[in-house]
Parts: sequence; C-alpha cells; structure tokens
Amino acid sequence: MVDKPTINFGLDGVYVDESSICKVDGQNGKLWYRGYAIEDLADMSNFEEVAYLLVYGKLPTRSEFEEFEKKLKERIQLPKEITDMIKIMAPSAHPMDVMRTATSMLSMYDKDPMNKERDNTIDKIITLLAKLPTIAAVTGRFRDKKKYIPPDPSLGLTANFLYMLTGKKPNDFEKKLIDLMFILHAEHSTNASTFSVLVTSSTLADIYSAITTGIGTLKGPLHGGADEAALKMMKAIGNPDNTEKYIEEALEGKQRIMGFGHRVYKVYDPRAKIVRKYLEESLTKEPSDEVETLLKIALRAEKLMVDKLGTSKGIWPNIDFFAGPLYRVLGIESELFTPIFVASRMSGWGAHIVEYWANNKLFRPLEYYTGQIGNTYIPIDKR
Amino acid sequence: MVDKPTINFGLDGVYVDESSICKVDGQNGKLWYRGYAIEDLADMSNFEEVAYLLVYGKLPTRSEFEEFEKKLKERIQLPKEITDMIKIMAPSAHPMDVMRTATSMLSMYDKDPMNKERDNTIDKIITLLAKLPTIAAVTGRFRDKKKYIPPDPSLGLTANFLYMLTGKKPNDFEKKLIDLMFILHAEHSTNASTFSVLVTSSTLADIYSAITTGIGTLKGPLHGGADEAALKMMKAIGNPDNTEKYIEEALEGKQRIMGFGHRVYKVYDPRAKIVRKYLEESLTKEPSDEVETLLKIALRAEKLMVDKLGTSKGIWPNIDFFAGPLYRVLGIESELFTPIFVASRMSGWGAHIVEYWANNKLFRPLEYYTGQIGNTYIPIDKR
Repeated sequence: MVDKPTINFGLDGVYVDESSICKVDGQNGKLWYRGYAIEDLADMSNFEEVAYLLVYGKLPTRSEFEEFEKKLKERIQLPKEITDMIKIMAPSAHPMDVMRTATSMLSMYDKDPMNKERDNTIDKIITLLAKLPTIAAVTGRFRDKKKYIPPDPSLGLTANFLYMLTGKKPNDFEKKLIDLMFILHAEHSTNASTFSVLVTSSTLADIYSAITTGIGTLKGPLHGGADEAALKMMKAIGNPDNTEKYIEEALEGKQRIMGFGHRVYKVYDPRAKIVRKYLEESLTKEPSDEVETLLKIALRAEKLMVDKLGTSKGIWPNIDFFAGPLYRVLGIESELFTPIFVASRMSGWGAHIVEYWANNKLFRPLEYYTGQIGNTYIPIDKR
Repeated sequence: MVDKPTINFGLDGVYVDESSICKVDGQNGKLWYRGYAIEDLADMSNFEEVAYLLVYGKLPTRSEFEEFEKKLKERIQLPKEITDMIKIMAPSAHPMDVMRTATSMLSMYDKDPMNKERDNTIDKIITLLAKLPTIAAVTGRFRDKKKYIPPDPSLGLTANFLYMLTGKKPNDFEKKLIDLMFILHAEHSTNASTFSVLVTSSTLADIYSAITTGIGTLKGPLHGGADEAALKMMKAIGNPDNTEKYIEEALEGKQRIMGFGHRVYKVYDPRAKIVRKYLEESLTKEPSDEVETLLKIALRAEKLMVDKLGTSKGIWPNIDFFAGPLYRVLGIESELFTPIFVASRMSGWGAHIVEYWANNKLFRPLEYYTGQIGNTYIPIDKR
C-alpha cells in the first residue's frame, strides 16, 4: 500500500520554470519587466518598446526600434477571410470568442507555422503583436454594426487601435492612456493564461496554437474578466453616496468584491496605483461626468475596503479595480477590456514562448486515482 | 537570502488533481476507464458507450444509450459558416489547424456558452462529440478537393466519420476497426493536452475555449503526432528486409525511434497489443499488400527493439507504433491521424472538465526569477 501523495491543487506554491522575464514581489508591491520598474516604464516608455524589451530581453536602440515599428506597421491589416469571419461572428459572439477564432485562423497565412527557430518565432510574435489589436478593434466595430476603418500609417500601434475602434484620431493624452494600459498588462509571470501557453508550447505545437490557448484561458471570469466585473459593480452603485452601504451589504452577504485581492500581491498592486494616478489626471485633461462619478465611487470603495481588509487581511485594490474607469475615459465598452488585455499580453506570452523553447520540457503531471478497478463488463441488455 | 526552491520542470511526478476517470498502471501495462479494463472495452463495447461511460461515470442502460445516440445523430452536421470556413482553410492548412479554428468558431452557435451547470456542460460535450468527427471528415474531403458528403442517419458516429471521409459505407469489420481506434484514444489521464484543458477550464472559461486549447496542445509533435511519424519511418524502411539495418543505424545515430517508449508505460502498452491483434486479423479480413508489408516491418522492428531495449531500459512499443498501419487498412491518410485522436479524446477531455468543475481550483504556479532587478531606464536616444 502506497501512502497518498501530496496533491498540489491549483499548483499553489509549485515552481514550474526558471525565467528572467518578469519579477513580481507580492510582499512589497513591486513589479519589474526584465529588471525595469513598472513605474519607470509606465511614465517614460511606450508599448512597442516594452514589447521589444520583453521579447528580446533588452531595450532597443533607435535603429532597432525603427525596424521593429516598421514591421508592426506593415503587418497591421488582416487578411480578407479573417475580416469576413469576424463580421459573421462579432454581432452575436463575445469578442473573446472572436479573437480566439481569428487568432487560430491566422496560422493559415504563415507559410511555415511549425518553424521554431528563435528568429522565426520572434517574427511570428511581431505578426501577432501587429494583428491582435486590429482583431480587437475590428471586432468592436462590427459588434456595433459600424463600418471597417483602415489603420492610419501615421499612428503607432496602440493609437491605431483606438482610431480603428472609434474612428477618431486620439489626442496626445488619449494616446498616453491607451499605451499605459497596454504597458501595464504586458506581462505578469506564470498566471493561468501564460502557464497554459507554456503547456501547449511544451508539446512543440506552433505559436498560433499556443496563443489561441492563452486567449481561451484569459477569457475565464477568474482571470481576465475582473476589470469588466469591477466596472459593473461601480455602475450598479451609481451614486457615490451609496458606496459604503453597497460594499458593506456585499461583504455581509460574503460576496466577492471584484478588483480587490490578488493571488500574489498582499499589498497595494503597483499597477493599480499608476492607473489611479492617471485617472485623477484625466479629470482635468479629459473631464467627463461619467468618469468623475466612477472615480468618486472607486475611491470611497477603496478607502472602506482598505480600512476593513487591507493591512489585516492583505486584500488591496488590484489593477482591475481602476482599469474600467480609465477605459471609460477613452470611451471603450467593457466587452473590449479583455481583448485589449490579450493584445497587450501577447508580448509577455511571446517572451515566455521564446524563453521556454530554448530549454523545452514537456508538461506531463500526474493525477491521483480515487476510482474503482476491475469492474466486470456486462452487455447493455443485461444491465 | 532565500534558498533556491525545487523547480518541477515538466511537472514530472507532481500530482495536480484527484480523479476517478482513468487509471494507468505503467509498471504493469494496465489501463482502466472508470474501472473497466481497456481490453474488455475494446473487444465488447463501442465508442458511443465508452464516451457515455467516461462522461457520466457509468455504463448506460439501453434507454440511456438510445437517447444519447439520438442526440449525437441530431447534432452531427455543421453550421454552414463553419463548413465554408473549413473549405477556405483545408487546402493549405494542417487539418489540426482547421479543427482548432472550427471548434473555436462553434462557440457562436451556443446560446449560453458560459453556462457551467453539470447538465448543460454535458449537453455541450455531446454537441462536440457529435461535431468533431464531422469536422475531421469534412476537412479530409476538402483537403483532397472532393465534395462534401452528408452523414447517413443509419450509421453510428464512427462509421459515419468513415463514410463522410471516404464516401464508402464501411463493412462490419471496418466499422469495428474505426470504433476500436476511437475507444483506445478516448482517455489517458493528465497528459499534456488533458492537463492544458484543465488549466483553461480552471479560469471558468467556457468549454469551447478549453477544447480549442486541447486541440492546439495535441497538435504538438511531442504529443499527438507520433503515429504519423512512426508510419513515416515504416514507409522509409520500405522493404521488410531493410528493417534491422535501418533501426540499428538509427539507434547508433542516437535517433529517436517513434512509437517506442512512453512517459508512463515501462512495459508493453496494453493498447498497442490490442491494435496489433486487430491488425493481424485484418490480413485475412481486409487483405492489402501495403498493410502486409507495413506489418512485417513493424513486427521485425518490434522484435529488434524489444530485444535491445525492452526489459533492459523499459522501452516498448506504444499505441502510436501500430496505429498508423491500422489506419491504412481503412485507407486513412496520415494527416488525419491526429484529428481522429482529437475526435476520440473529446470524451476524456469532457469527462475531466465535468469532474474538475465540481471542485474547481484556479491553476497559478510560480516561476523562479533568474534575471536582474533595478535597471535604470535610459531614454532611447541615449542608449
């Protein structure tokens, strides 16, 4: 008789890999991409540069950056068949279902999809970095039964996303905000979606299979969808004066308050602080009654939650809490929040695939059998 | 300073879950689905019954079976948009890429894709069990630029697959063979694809996302593609008299011999024995020069490998070794082997999703950071 082994439900506390991509210090509320503090990247960098940093492991020189940007611009448009498929799916399906299908279909436009050489892998990542924001924008357009808007070659990747989605050229502050959200969502170590990308990659399946996996995994409400849920709560509260009553009743009813608490951060999520700062700045630069009300509600909810559960239980606001109101500054609907997360996280997923394939090992865990053995097969008419 | 933690590369030996679906005894070469020996199921059962057993946890009564079969027959056809998409992709893309995309697109035909109640989940599994063989068959047709063949309501699920693929109604022995292959591939605990299905499911993403993940993961040459590779080797050997020379040279050159060795089985894979038995039977029931030559090569390769590496190193034939020749009895091309694996494994994936959601826990492992911290951000023109 063998003793029952330890079962690592959810792989809590289990290390599955070594990595030099991203360090999350959940005890001190710090986050670094390739050694650079998230606050510095958020204030001083841009998304294309951060994507380059994550995938190549270093910040680009001016000429490297220009070559990278040129490739992104050349690849931003979608093949006609994919635009057609999005047009069919978008009116009724969730935008994440559309993105998952479109990304899967993209593999047929790659002449050598199974090629796993490092340079070729990075080239595929650049293609996906260029096209995923377009898939999200086009899906948003068709969902609202609006016409397709071709990209504007004068705009960068994230500004073009906004332009293709809304039809309006963003001003400098709007450009900064959308870039900021892409930077903050670019990478966060082996959370469920990145881990699933690695499991698929570990069989030496192609990168389109792996990224399709990541999109499907990020769709889950326990993972990518929390910003949408947090905004929904703020809208349900409606008037800032209702905030405390709403939250207290929800806590008494043991409801989970979306946008609070994190599996890794036991203090204030550094990304949430950055989003809150820019959200406050938006009130003077892009004033909006809707956003002002949302922020008032958010800040009162934050104070109450932090007083009750912050230091005592390690439950603090995370990035999902303030992300929704910030997207509303830009007029983005909540169904597109997770697709933006995908388009941004493509950089981190890509970086992890490149790193993992350099030292690949197939994932093949075990499960502990609790069922029967030795049942006798009885033909159907005698059961 | 904290000591470096244990890193579980590939999750070797790590238990991630409890399960009552399937027991693999790799030391004794035994396999049970829900307590029933694989030999009994292979000889006496059929695929629909095995799928029912895996998903519901028990063998069906006659009336339960008839209801299950009725639903499968009602759902076998594909929506027009999906047939159209397959027609676009099939001539140039790998059939697994087509299946991944078609399965992802199927979500839009589900009015409530995020519903996770047990009965509703099983209903979605039945839909996928019905449609995945059709996706594989239609892909095979369009790949060869042949016309679509509608299913025949008089045939069962796996026979209909053969009919829709080849245009010929299978005889009883052919029906038995295709059913056998579906039974043997239906389930095998937490290998990479099933594990990836669980990781995606654990975020409470929908079942279409989870199965799309499974297909992408199974595509990897380290996972689902080994039967295709083993057949390729036998074809390269060509003449049975070349077998020993070919294998010995390959072993000397440290090449991996596909279809031998298994992460779990350290003795003869019980499924390989079953396939070998039916393959020998086929030589009298469905004689074919091609298959006779392939089997002669396979048996000589097997003898040599077992003598050299069997008992001494625990490297024995696995199911992938004999699967290719058996599919050739049915005239199936090698690019469709893994799609058949998908259509069959849908039953095991479905069973695991139902089981996991009854006691769900989000997968969120850790990675050990080996990079730098505290890099100073220098603007691009000063780098």
